[in-house]
Amino acid sequence: MIHTIAFDADDTLWHNEIIFTDTHERFRALFDEQCDPERVAKELYATEIRNLEIFGYGIKGFGLSMIETAIELSEGKVTGAQLQGILDGVKAMLAAPVNVLEGVTETLKELSGDFELMVITKGDLFDQETKIARSGLGDLFRHVEVVSEKSPAHYRTALHKYNLDPARFLMVGNSIKSDVLPVIELGARAVHVPYQTTWQHEVVAEEEYADVRFETLRSIRELPALVWSLHTA
Amino acid sequence: MIHTIAFDADDTLWHNEIIFTDTHERFRALFDEQCDPERVAKELYATEIRNLEIFGYGIKGFGLSMIETAIELSEGKVTGAQLQGILDGVKAMLAAPVNVLEGVTETLKELSGDFELMVITKGDLFDQETKIARSGLGDLFRHVEVVSEKSPAHYRTALHKYNLDPARFLMVGNSIKSDVLPVIELGARAVHVPYQTTWQHEVVAEEEYADVRFETLRSIRELPALVWSLHTA
Repeated sequence: MIHTIAFDADDTLWHNEIIFTDTHERFRALFDEQCDPERVAKELYATEIRNLEIFGYGIKGFGLSMIETAIELSEGKVTGAQLQGILDGVKAMLAAPVNVLEGVTETLKELSGDFELMVITKGDLFDQETKIARSGLGDLFRHVEVVSEKSPAHYRTALHKYNLDPARFLMVGNSIKSDVLPVIELGARAVHVPYQTTWQHEVVAEEEYADVRFETLRSIRELPALVWSLHTA
Repeated sequence: MIHTIAFDADDTLWHNEIIFTDTHERFRALFDEQCDPERVAKELYATEIRNLEIFGYGIKGFGLSMIETAIELSEGKVTGAQLQGILDGVKAMLAAPVNVLEGVTETLKELSGDFELMVITKGDLFDQETKIARSGLGDLFRHVEVVSEKSPAHYRTALHKYNLDPARFLMVGNSIKSDVLPVIELGARAVHVPYQTTWQHEVVAEEEYADVRFETLRSIRELPALVWSLHTA
C-alpha cells in the first residue's frame, strides 16, 4: 500500500526547462555578431557541465557559467551591455512566474485526501522554496525536501529523514535518470511523466534501463488510477 | 533535559566570514586604480543586500552581486581580467579549505556520546553539504538541515521535520540575530558563541534583546559544562 507520493518539481509540477531554453537563446543573441550560434551553445553547455561540480545545480551557478562563457567567447572583451543582459536574464529566471503544468493542481488535490504528498527536488534551496510558495501548491505538501543531487544515497537520506518506508513510497517525475532509476534501486516505486523536452544532462540511454520496469504516463492526470491499481494489485 | 544540540555551521564550527572578508579585499584591489576603496566596499554591500531577496544567502549570489557591482563601478567598462578575477574568487571561495575552529572537534566528540547533534545552517545547499563533508565532522551529526533563512518559522519547520521537542532542544551559534533570538522565541534554548567578526547584516542592536536572557560563551569548549548545568538545574 502506498503511503507517500513524492513529486519532482521542475518540469513535473511546473514548466522550468523552457525558462533555461529561453535564456540560452537570449544568451546566443547577445553574441550573434561575434560568434556562430552553435559554437555559443556548445561552449555554454561545456562550461555549465564543467562547473556543476563546484556550483551544483540551479540558476545562480548557471548565471556564473554564462558569464564565464561570455569572457571566453569574447576573448575578454565582453561589454557592459552583454554582462548586464546576462545578469538581467538571471534575475528574470529567478523571478519568472511559476507556470503549473496542465492537470497538476487537480491531480494533487485529488490525491492529497488519501496520500501524504511531498516534493523532492534538486537545485537552489532558496529558489525552489520561493517557487513552491509562488506555485500556490505549497499547502498540498506535507514535506518539501530540496536535495543537492538525486543519487540513491540522497534518496535514502531523505526517506530516512521523514521515516518513510521504501515499500510504501512512490516517486513521480520527468527524469528517468534522477526521478526513476535511483528510486527503484532503493526498492521503492517510481513513475515517469515525461516533459516536452529534457535537459541534455538528464538524458540517459535506453540501454541503461532496458531491464528496469516502470510505468510511463502520458499525463499526470493518469496518476490516481495508477496509484489505486498498485493498491489493489 | 536537553536531547538535541544543534549547531550553526559558518563561523560556529569553521571559519567563514574571513573568506568573504578576503574576497571583499581582493575585489577592492581589482578596482583600486578606478575607484576609492571605501566607495567600492559601500557599493558592494548595498548590491549584496539588495540582491538577498532574489539570490538568497551564499557564495554564488554574492558572486553575481560582485559582477553587478563591477559593471556599475566601471560604468560598463569592466575588463575581462577584472571579471575573471571575480570568477576565480568565487571558485576559490567555494573550494576553500574548511578550517574547523579551535576546540570544535573535541567538544563535539565529547557531546556526541550523550546528546543527538545536528547542524542547522543557512546558505547554498550544495556548498554547505560539501563543507560538512570536507570538515571531517559529518559523522558526528545525526541530521544536517540547510535552511534558506533563520526565522522562528524556519526553526519551527525544522524542529517539526525531525520530531524535536523545543523544550529539549538547544541551539548553538555565533549570530544573536539568527541563532539565538528566533530559537528563544520558539521556547527552546540557545547559546551564543561569538566569532571574531560579525557580518554587518547579522549585527543586531543590543536594545533589541535587552530583555532576552541567554548565555554567551567565550569558547565552544565551555559548552559541555553549560549543557550539564542545564541538566542538573
